Amino acid sequence: MEYKFSDRVQSLKPSAIREIFKYAADPTVVSLSAGNPSPDAFPTEEISEISQRLFAENPIAALQYSVTEGYTPLREFLKGYMKSKHNVGSDSDDILITSGAQQIMDLASKSVLNEGDVVICENPSFIGSLNTFRSYNARLVGVPVEPDGMNVEKLEEALKSEPNAKFIYTIPNFQNPSGVTMSLEKRKAVYELAKKYQVLIIEDNPYGDLRFSGEFLPCIKSFDDEGIVIYSGSFSKVISPGMRVGYAIAPKEIIQKMVVCKQGQDVHTNIWSQLVCYEFLTKYDFDKHLEKLRDIYRKKANFAMDLLDKHLAPKITYNRIDGGLFIWCDLPENTDVSQFCMNAVKNKVCVVPGTAFMANETDVTHSFRINFSTPTDEQLKKGIEILGELAKTL
Amino acid sequence: MEYKFSDRVQSLKPSAIREIFKYAADPTVVSLSAGNPSPDAFPTEEISEISQRLFAENPIAALQYSVTEGYTPLREFLKGYMKSKHNVGSDSDDILITSGAQQIMDLASKSVLNEGDVVICENPSFIGSLNTFRSYNARLVGVPVEPDGMNVEKLEEALKSEPNAKFIYTIPNFQNPSGVTMSLEKRKAVYELAKKYQVLIIEDNPYGDLRFSGEFLPCIKSFDDEGIVIYSGSFSKVISPGMRVGYAIAPKEIIQKMVVCKQGQDVHTNIWSQLVCYEFLTKYDFDKHLEKLRDIYRKKANFAMDLLDKHLAPKITYNRIDGGLFIWCDLPENTDVSQFCMNAVKNKVCVVPGTAFMANETDVTHSFRINFSTPTDEQLKKGIEILGELAKTL
Repeated sequence: MEYKFSDRVQSLKPSAIREIFKYAADPTVVSLSAGNPSPDAFPTEEISEISQRLFAENPIAALQYSVTEGYTPLREFLKGYMKSKHNVGSDSDDILITSGAQQIMDLASKSVLNEGDVVICENPSFIGSLNTFRSYNARLVGVPVEPDGMNVEKLEEALKSEPNAKFIYTIPNFQNPSGVTMSLEKRKAVYELAKKYQVLIIEDNPYGDLRFSGEFLPCIKSFDDEGIVIYSGSFSKVISPGMRVGYAIAPKEIIQKMVVCKQGQDVHTNIWSQLVCYEFLTKYDFDKHLEKLRDIYRKKANFAMDLLDKHLAPKITYNRIDGGLFIWCDLPENTDVSQFCMNAVKNKVCVVPGTAFMANETDVTHSFRINFSTPTDEQLKKGIEILGELAKTL
Repeated sequence: MEYKFSDRVQSLKPSAIREIFKYAADPTVVSLSAGNPSPDAFPTEEISEISQRLFAENPIAALQYSVTEGYTPLREFLKGYMKSKHNVGSDSDDILITSGAQQIMDLASKSVLNEGDVVICENPSFIGSLNTFRSYNARLVGVPVEPDGMNVEKLEEALKSEPNAKFIYTIPNFQNPSGVTMSLEKRKAVYELAKKYQVLIIEDNPYGDLRFSGEFLPCIKSFDDEGIVIYSGSFSKVISPGMRVGYAIAPKEIIQKMVVCKQGQDVHTNIWSQLVCYEFLTKYDFDKHLEKLRDIYRKKANFAMDLLDKHLAPKITYNRIDGGLFIWCDLPENTDVSQFCMNAVKNKVCVVPGTAFMANETDVTHSFRINFSTPTDEQLKKGIEILGELAKTL
């Protein structure tokens, strides 16, 4: 049989990162290409303890069908927590527990985008989200990321020239892949522009709790008196990614549509992991756990940046980061980044070429992404030394 | 702000069953409306034991990011198991672990359906799947279900008159909601017609292992020398639905597209539950567990059918079932089934009107669905007695 696929998936390709991961699976290759939390960062003992207790006390509750909206006590807790801690959420908002934050991108796209509609995104941006938008046949319009966040003038140009723009997608904290954090001024400006042009914002914040230096900045959602921000939260980087638990805080009408889409997508999110998250958040010291994670990543990030300073300068430069899991490295302007990354793999170190993160295939970049949370210190040292050798040839 | 939603979700409504569940949440109402496995049917001790062991031996493996295709040992085991036990799967097929079988419906729809394409389904059929197809703006064409499965002549008529039909959706074993099992003859006929008209089949088989009487019948997928069947398996009814683990066995090219869609939807299925399923299937006596489930459901089904015979005959009739979780009850032809179900709720028993399961809102039915797996024997007795009182008024 000759299979006929839908127009929307005809041109979809497997994520370029996942293709690179195939090289990274070779145990002799040092992988700086993943985005996994450090193995040290998992609260394994607490989760084991909680899980044992759940099965001892009420196993059926951890195994039976549950409701699409998510485990009610977890939703209630998060509502209160996000409101008191981050001023995120209002009476006109609701909360939906999702199968990772990735599902928020899918449900929001499915609820809002018609084929050919426009999504405005930072350029570069997280490939996973971009591919979800593409899978609904959205057209991506990229706005350059500067050291203090997206270029606001270019954002307004895009909003002016794209009447079918449905939302602005942004990762304001320690953006993946650029590591950039949006300034307070720009957060306010982006919000005002979205309001002016009546376009939604998806604020994706998986790394917000992983700030290891500098001052905390308020979420865009905390300004949201107009009901235009879909806030995307995740436990992947602060509890466990394998559990696939995220949460959307957004206007009730939008959440309602997302719930209907989720019913048809996976009925509800794995209930055991929702219970584990709830117990961990409410019966253990979550703040202390976050402090521990910040210590781990501060140490690892500084270790990585010292190595970059030592081995890659002056040919390869980067902006120092205050949190998150990624560092964005810039090659000299005349360099072919794909070629460089292919050379790197041949020399047994795997990094992700910036091209993978661009809104459009023709967008030019001379940068690549390094992850420092997954590799061991030894691997980081070895990997960055190899990159340093390659830098000398540029 | 005035929210603009996509065309595809404009008309989507929350599942009618879930609306009825709101009444069922009243603890004084006997709910015969759910589809949950019996609390007795969960291997709680085994899962607790496995989970403890996973966290003791390699907690990071149960909590870290994993691959989109699913946990490799589970995929390999299922390939062998489904081949040797059911002759399902060939060298040109691949297997994908999904977040419940519901996700198979979504991923297959997303991969294959353009807006306005046709899905041919049994009428009545499982509302969850129908709503997923609708969420991709598919047009549903229903083929009547007879006591031995879908009407094959009507199926051919539909295939002839609908050149944009992309797949036939069928639940051959103990169909939800009708309880009907398709005969071997019809399985072959449906397969041949799909081949003749070059249309895919989605064979949804969540209840196949729950046969408590009669002879096992081969899956449609076991005839599939042409590569046209997407087989949908699930652990929801035989291990735990809250875990959300299903698996699709389908031609490699189709699985490839589904994998790309799944990357953008939830990255991968909760890894802890994949590990638990793998351990349970390979280190425990799964056949014995299935025998236990069949005993539980045989007993409960017979108990329910005896009550139906005693209280509902002759006004309300039904076809005896050989497995699954549902019984389909027929009211006299002149009866308004929605009105009957509303009366039932007012009298403190909740059943699902057949209208919820029809391909199109205008399709007429005089039937309602009873579930016998979730209620206790006392609840079944009380609920069916109330229905009996209502039957007398018809």
